[in-house]
Amino acid sequence: AQSQKETVATQDQVWVLETNLDDQTAEGIGFAQSQLLTAGALDVYVTPVQMKKARPGVLLTVLAAENDRERLVTAMLKYTTAKGIRYTQMARTVMKRHFTTVSYKGMPIRLKVATYHDIHRVTPEYEDCQTAAQKLDVALETVMAGVQAQLS
Amino acid sequence: AQSQKETVATQDQVWVLETNLDDQTAEGIGFAQSQLLTAGALDVYVTPVQMKKARPGVLLTVLAAENDRERLVTAMLKYTTAKGIRYTQMARTVMKRHFTTVSYKGMPIRLKVATYHDIHRVTPEYEDCQTAAQKLDVALETVMAGVQAQLS
Amino acid sequence: AQSQKETVATQDQVWVLETNLDDQTAEGIGFAQSQLLTAGALDVYVTPVQMKKARPGVLLTVLAAENDRERLVTAMLKYTTAKGIRYTQMARTVMKRHFTTVSYKGMPIRLKVATYHDIHRVTPEYEDCQTAAQKLDVALETVMAGVQAQLS
Amino acid sequence: AQSQKETVATQDQVWVLETNLDDQTAEGIGFAQSQLLTAGALDVYVTPVQMKKARPGVLLTVLAAENDRERLVTAMLKYTTAKGIRYTQMARTVMKRHFTTVSYKGMPIRLKVATYHDIHRVTPEYEDCQTAAQKLDVALETVMAGVQAQLS
Amino acid sequence: AQSQKETVATQDQVWVLETNLDDQTAEGIGFAQSQLLTAGALDVYVTPVQMKKARPGVLLTVLAAENDRERLVTAMLKYTTAKGIRYTQMARTVMKRHFTTVSYKGMPIRLKVATYHDIHRVTPEYEDCQTAAQKLDVALETVMAGVQAQLS
Amino acid sequence: AQSQKETVATQDQVWVLETNLDDQTAEGIGFAQSQLLTAGALDVYVTPVQMKKARPGVLLTVLAAENDRERLVTAMLKYTTAKGIRYTQMARTVMKRHFTTVSYKGMPIRLKVATYHDIHRVTPEYEDCQTAAQKLDVALETVMAGVQAQLS
Ligand code: NI
Ligand code: NI
Ligand code: NI
Ligand code: NI
Ligand code: NI
Ligand code: NI
Ligand code: NI
Ligand code: NI
Ligand code: NI
Ligand code: NI
Ligand code: NI
Ligand code: NI
Repeated sequence: AQSQKETVATQDQVWVLETNLDDQTAEGIGFAQSQLLTAGALDVYVTPVQMKKARPGVLLTVLAAENDRERLVTAMLKYTTAKGIRYTQMARTVMKRHFTTVSYKGMPIRLKVATYHDIHRVTPEYEDCQTAAQKLDVALETVMAGVQAQLS
Repeated sequence: AQSQKETVATQDQVWVLETNLDDQTAEGIGFAQSQLLTAGALDVYVTPVQMKKARPGVLLTVLAAENDRERLVTAMLKYTTAKGIRYTQMARTVMKRHFTTVSYKGMPIRLKVATYHDIHRVTPEYEDCQTAAQKLDVALETVMAGVQAQLS
Repeated sequence: AQSQKETVATQDQVWVLETNLDDQTAEGIGFAQSQLLTAGALDVYVTPVQMKKARPGVLLTVLAAENDRERLVTAMLKYTTAKGIRYTQMARTVMKRHFTTVSYKGMPIRLKVATYHDIHRVTPEYEDCQTAAQKLDVALETVMAGVQAQLS
Repeated sequence: AQSQKETVATQDQVWVLETNLDDQTAEGIGFAQSQLLTAGALDVYVTPVQMKKARPGVLLTVLAAENDRERLVTAMLKYTTAKGIRYTQMARTVMKRHFTTVSYKGMPIRLKVATYHDIHRVTPEYEDCQTAAQKLDVALETVMAGVQAQLS
Repeated sequence: AQSQKETVATQDQVWVLETNLDDQTAEGIGFAQSQLLTAGALDVYVTPVQMKKARPGVLLTVLAAENDRERLVTAMLKYTTAKGIRYTQMARTVMKRHFTTVSYKGMPIRLKVATYHDIHRVTPEYEDCQTAAQKLDVALETVMAGVQAQLS
Repeated sequence: AQSQKETVATQDQVWVLETNLDDQTAEGIGFAQSQLLTAGALDVYVTPVQMKKARPGVLLTVLAAENDRERLVTAMLKYTTAKGIRYTQMARTVMKRHFTTVSYKGMPIRLKVATYHDIHRVTPEYEDCQTAAQKLDVALETVMAGVQAQLS
């Protein structure tokens, strides 16, 4: 298939930035998460943790590309109540990917084709499946199974 | 202040609907959560649980108004992979509320004033604070603290 | 298809039994979970909770059929360190189900067909997919997608 | 042994009070938890949940004796940011208990002896073991295992 | 304001020590957490994880200053049931801080003023707010909002 | 005692491999966890996390010996839906261990004796205690306490 964006299996480095939060509300953390994604984080996720003095805090983790560390440390200090940010680098193996498109009930669904040695995986793009599921008013799984059925 | 929507302290009943999910992806559950809110759930939340055979499943809980139980049971079966839904009623004590509005840096911020006996609580509306925080490009807490400062 | 075990959409009652544990190890709780399933629990799941004195405890929940409550309360007291068990009944709506079988790469895979009004869902049985995935040495998803592809 | 406080196996009712919190900090929730225990809650625990708009909220649960419901609903509204509290009653089976005391390295350790039909369980009291562990500067497990060794 | 303890924005290194626990009770882990803080850990937190054989274990994480690694590895082995401890160093960016004091209803409340480039954050000290909240018998949020109101 | 497998207190390196999963079911993750243990992982554990778009995902972590990194990265890509794996090395301090055996009600129970400087810990092997608990139909704790009682 003709790819939209093709990548070879990469071996790169990713920054892992983290901070524990016990003095910010869930509302504030939800807002920060969305601002950090807008600010260019590769990913943002939140882990519930139990902190000192019986506090149900969270660990906020941001993944950042090699050149984005300083910018995202600043963004974490800006949008959260953290006074400090810890960070380190991790190596990363990423599967080779290309894209192709199929049609499901008249709607285009992009497929991500990922390859690593003899492992091949085809994943319908979430956003396209979501659009179709909303239009058809069905579960996301109905669309995904329907798309899978065409791939055999 | 003149209220937008005023409620007395209520004593009502709320339906609690729940189901454990071990065969739906996080993507699918996120989609279902948003569809269930659209379908009229009072609230939807997800609790991580450990199910049999070492499965990191979730408990999906939906709160529904007295007349919405059957409709939301059907919506849960429609948008999730659940084969069954458990439900019960809980009594609920809800504080009396009215609304008022203040201005923060030229932007209107609604305040929810909640009362129960001698307990009084004033909460700036999230959506208004979010709008202001995005416009000013600051943390949500900066707006909320600024609004609180006006209330003294 | 000819069903193996066919059920109509039921409206039944299920017992929810629960206890908080802060003085049993994860090893002991894992053992208890397996004993409780053997003892006839409909389901057993564990929720991480934060208890008093900064203790990372768990809430153990057991679902039991209408006539099994007393037997499973006793089993919970026997296999866990709990000194007390709380319980209540919840109503339950369960989809109508029947079973059929397909073949995947020469292996039989049972399908659970669940129906509720106009909602239809077909789910390959986990145990059969697991057997096939182990034999073929692939991800569970590979088998499930392969089975889905035959259903279109 | 001569019991300090002896109870027969009881069949009672306990109130379960709950509220979801997304606009209170972990610090504030930790403070509320301690105030609610002081206010007479039988138990207080906190469950991490994922609420709407990607908020890492918590479910706060309070267990209360039959006559304490109204008082603890009020306390929850007072010490948390909740605008409403849900509650229901659950039946409870509690093992028969009596107390006895042993000595460990010269320090008194109370033992809770719990009985239900043919299930017997002897548990060293946490507070006494904690005092001993702090004095001896060892893990809690060292004291508990030492006490268990005397019971054979 | 005259600072009590003033720090410049630092770029330092912090040790992250961790171990998974599946054979210690929540009581024992709570005790260990408090001993580790006393032993000089910068922070201690507990993450619920699902371990092999359906065990609801925890990941215990200790943050330690550059010279405290060996001492805290030993303390973790002493107060927990762990047989091994993993550790690595992370870089850390910490905001510049100084302290000042305000008065709230006659009680002194220290304020932590944190600065990083053009980000400024003022946080009332938890311990002082807790003391005030207990004395006035109000939620922690009432004190914190009252203090914020003075800062405008 | 004569040891079965004796190790000195080691200072080694362990690989930490991780990936966030939001498009695999709990069933599929449970299956992957078991395959990864079979494939030679030192340990596998799953942490519930909150990912973008309100998704209740998990962080899958695999610990691997120094020479097993590439093999286990491949296994993670094979058995999960991950498109990329992050990894780093952590140093590890492991207590010196040897084994001995006691008898409990006629059944052999291996004991792991772990030593680090002046810290000594004796742990009955889980598998042996599990076998005994199943045979005697008691809680795991009953066996473990019985074994502890012999060690005094
Ligand atoms: Ni192609
Ligand atoms: Ni703090
Ligand atoms: Ni008013
Ligand atoms: Ni299932
Ligand atoms: Ni059929
Ligand atoms: Ni206890
Ligand atoms: Ni006695
Ligand atoms: Ni809200
Ligand atoms: Ni100053
Ligand atoms: Ni173990
Ligand atoms: Ni020996
Ligand atoms: Ni994705």
